[in-house]
Amino acid sequence: MIRKFLLLVLFCGSVYSQTSADIKKYKNTANSIVRKALVEEKGYMLLGELSHFGSRLSGSPNYYEAVEWAKDRMNDLGLANVRLQKIMGPHWVRGGDEILEVAAENDVNRTFSIAALGKSVGTADTSIIAGIIEVTGFDDLELKKDYVKNKIVFYNTPYDRGEINTFRAYGKAVQYRVFGASRAAKYGAKAVIIRSVDSKIDNVPHTGVMLYDKDFPKIPAAAIANRDAEYLSSTLSVNPRLKLRLKLSCKNLPDTSAYNIIGEIKGTEFPDEIIVIGGHFDSWDKGFGMHDDGAPCIQTMEAIYLLKTLGIQPKRTIRCVLFADEEISGRGAIKYAELAAADSTVKHIAAIESDRGAFTPRGFSVKTDSVSLGKMLLWLPVLNEASIDWIRPGGSGADVAKIKGTKALLGYVPDGQRYFDLHHSDNDIFETVHPREMELGSAAIAIMALLLSDFGL
Amino acid sequence: MIRKFLLLVLFCGSVYSQTSADIKKYKNTANSIVRKALVEEKGYMLLGELSHFGSRLSGSPNYYEAVEWAKDRMNDLGLANVRLQKIMGPHWVRGGDEILEVAAENDVNRTFSIAALGKSVGTADTSIIAGIIEVTGFDDLELKKDYVKNKIVFYNTPYDRGEINTFRAYGKAVQYRVFGASRAAKYGAKAVIIRSVDSKIDNVPHTGVMLYDKDFPKIPAAAIANRDAEYLSSTLSVNPRLKLRLKLSCKNLPDTSAYNIIGEIKGTEFPDEIIVIGGHFDSWDKGFGMHDDGAPCIQTMEAIYLLKTLGIQPKRTIRCVLFADEEISGRGAIKYAELAAADSTVKHIAAIESDRGAFTPRGFSVKTDSVSLGKMLLWLPVLNEASIDWIRPGGSGADVAKIKGTKALLGYVPDGQRYFDLHHSDNDIFETVHPREMELGSAAIAIMALLLSDFGL
Repeated sequence: MIRKFLLLVLFCGSVYSQTSADIKKYKNTANSIVRKALVEEKGYMLLGELSHFGSRLSGSPNYYEAVEWAKDRMNDLGLANVRLQKIMGPHWVRGGDEILEVAAENDVNRTFSIAALGKSVGTADTSIIAGIIEVTGFDDLELKKDYVKNKIVFYNTPYDRGEINTFRAYGKAVQYRVFGASRAAKYGAKAVIIRSVDSKIDNVPHTGVMLYDKDFPKIPAAAIANRDAEYLSSTLSVNPRLKLRLKLSCKNLPDTSAYNIIGEIKGTEFPDEIIVIGGHFDSWDKGFGMHDDGAPCIQTMEAIYLLKTLGIQPKRTIRCVLFADEEISGRGAIKYAELAAADSTVKHIAAIESDRGAFTPRGFSVKTDSVSLGKMLLWLPVLNEASIDWIRPGGSGADVAKIKGTKALLGYVPDGQRYFDLHHSDNDIFETVHPREMELGSAAIAIMALLLSDFGL
Repeated sequence: MIRKFLLLVLFCGSVYSQTSADIKKYKNTANSIVRKALVEEKGYMLLGELSHFGSRLSGSPNYYEAVEWAKDRMNDLGLANVRLQKIMGPHWVRGGDEILEVAAENDVNRTFSIAALGKSVGTADTSIIAGIIEVTGFDDLELKKDYVKNKIVFYNTPYDRGEINTFRAYGKAVQYRVFGASRAAKYGAKAVIIRSVDSKIDNVPHTGVMLYDKDFPKIPAAAIANRDAEYLSSTLSVNPRLKLRLKLSCKNLPDTSAYNIIGEIKGTEFPDEIIVIGGHFDSWDKGFGMHDDGAPCIQTMEAIYLLKTLGIQPKRTIRCVLFADEEISGRGAIKYAELAAADSTVKHIAAIESDRGAFTPRGFSVKTDSVSLGKMLLWLPVLNEASIDWIRPGGSGADVAKIKGTKALLGYVPDGQRYFDLHHSDNDIFETVHPREMELGSAAIAIMALLLSDFGL
């Protein structure tokens, strides 16, 4: 395997030997991009501004204000052709009450820390008072299906802390959050409570989207913080007849507007060939959406600013796209991809998504052919100036993956060890973003976009 | 250069092809080491215990208590042959007063945030009241040497925030802290104030060792926090005749005892061949010495615990050495190296130092010959299980570098972007250590030690 890889690199080295001569030049350019980002901390300062708007759930007043801010800042940063692309997207609101507590008929008083899941229906003007049944997952649910009717199903599946790849651990656990409600509704459950999908041992619940299967009743769904999940589980082991009261005010309102926010730097030689860089501008309504995905959005704006203010003129157009509503519907990405496909005057060469937090750069994961991958691997000494150690085959991101016809779809991969401490929760605040870590990401994205732009694929 | 490197890897691949067959086996072992570290967080919990002792400046009461704790914990963790190696080392104390303020004869009242530098003399029972002269570095000092007499020299050389390699930035700036006092004393200065060598913009001073040149008078030396350095500089630009009052209670006491703390796991095949892993157990008296170097010390203890409790039996002996007094004299390392050289019954094969904080693993820097390096490079797929992306030629660490006759001296290199925010300061507290980041370091060190132990060099 290693041999094969090395031979591939050597092979590509001869095919693309013209780039070797450029490595030194681009290393110098990369170094000046890194230096400017670190010294100036422009993106980090912009993130501080963005944090003042609060969270940016699609359809919320904060969101619209922040969209105006982003558009203005793109102009201030010198991006060209700044514009909005309107979509109509879901409008879910959390409302005032989110209560899970031991019901009055029990001897104990105890309230649990919960957060309704996105798209969940609420309990209308009333509460659900019901017994609770704990399951470890879908297999366990099947075993216990005869006892589910009229109960609250409690999915208590811990996030796998032993998994070094935190995104893989998230991927394994998140199925209960997304599909758990309808699977339980199928057997007559009244509501579901899902153990938060996160890596930090604390009492902060982590929200996220859930989906209903149209074949079953829509029942309320909420995440419970992991410390309270442990407490609830141990309480149930002593008192399995415990009843809980659940009240959720959340509801789904009619669709409303949201916006892709777009700006770019025109290519000098091939202006109609586009490299997209971007993230999603919406966030959950918990915390301030800083790592997810405020800082990464700003990184992609800042990347163009860095090139522009350093007088670097990319050969192909680099376009920053801050996608609308990734968290609930993904419709911003769908809209962008549709319009891109319909426009025969431009050609999308590659796209980079930044949606894994703003920690120190580690690598890029890439979906492309082996020749393009080999070409990119030759750029590693340049990217290493921004702490990028590898380029590996892999996924890009939920938004850019929708763009059709590119030669490569890339995901920017920073260190992932702290991300699921804060993802979709009140922990996702400005103070958790480190200026140098964030700025190196801006530089890494700027450098990769520049290389794609100047060398093509 | 890349070609050369690849050919070297291919060449070593054929020489050491026996290891390729083992890669899969060791990948599995590595994975179980990582998993156990992450799930259990044993080292992180021990760090919480260690933090209760406070800082561990060599010779301080805290230090001796913590030494006893470390010895006990080594035994609890199952390390064999736990013992202390006594040295006599310096005993510097900060004392009660650390005052830098605008002198009473001026119109303004202003106190600055400072910390005496380690080994600095104090101002005895009095204060120094003197005019101040700002210099940007040694060249500037030479230009201004005629104006230095009876003044306080203020070295205001900022840490280079544009440098991605934070240790390189530190290396460039730290010369003023180490040598600044005597260089100014040469021209008759009464004291020196050095801008803190650190990357965080705040008002926390960072201490560290300084050295006197015997040819010049010993004058007091203190670090000033970087925000106050900026303030002082701007004040001086308006009022160059400003006088300051400096009072430092610090002093050097007679040498006192300190201890190398040692424990190991015996090799099954070559018990007399030693792989050392370790850090330094002393810290500065600011903060709690968590990243520097408490957590890294615990990582090396935990590495042996991980191997032992997973039933992994290394072929060569892996020895944990927590060195005495790295911060001031380095005498712990000198002592260990002397005793090691004098003991003909054992042979030191390799040594790994962990003294760069407890952040997410990035790589190992190694001083060795090209054949051994080639051999180690073949282990990268195994080490990658613990987030190690590279092995590069480079330095090891101040302590293990003193050991003579090894085939390789290694430095464990975690991500370095946050380290100089907290190094040698009140910012170096338990809360800045992330459990997963620290535990991955323990796993990375355990895996590298195991590979060195089983394959030799």
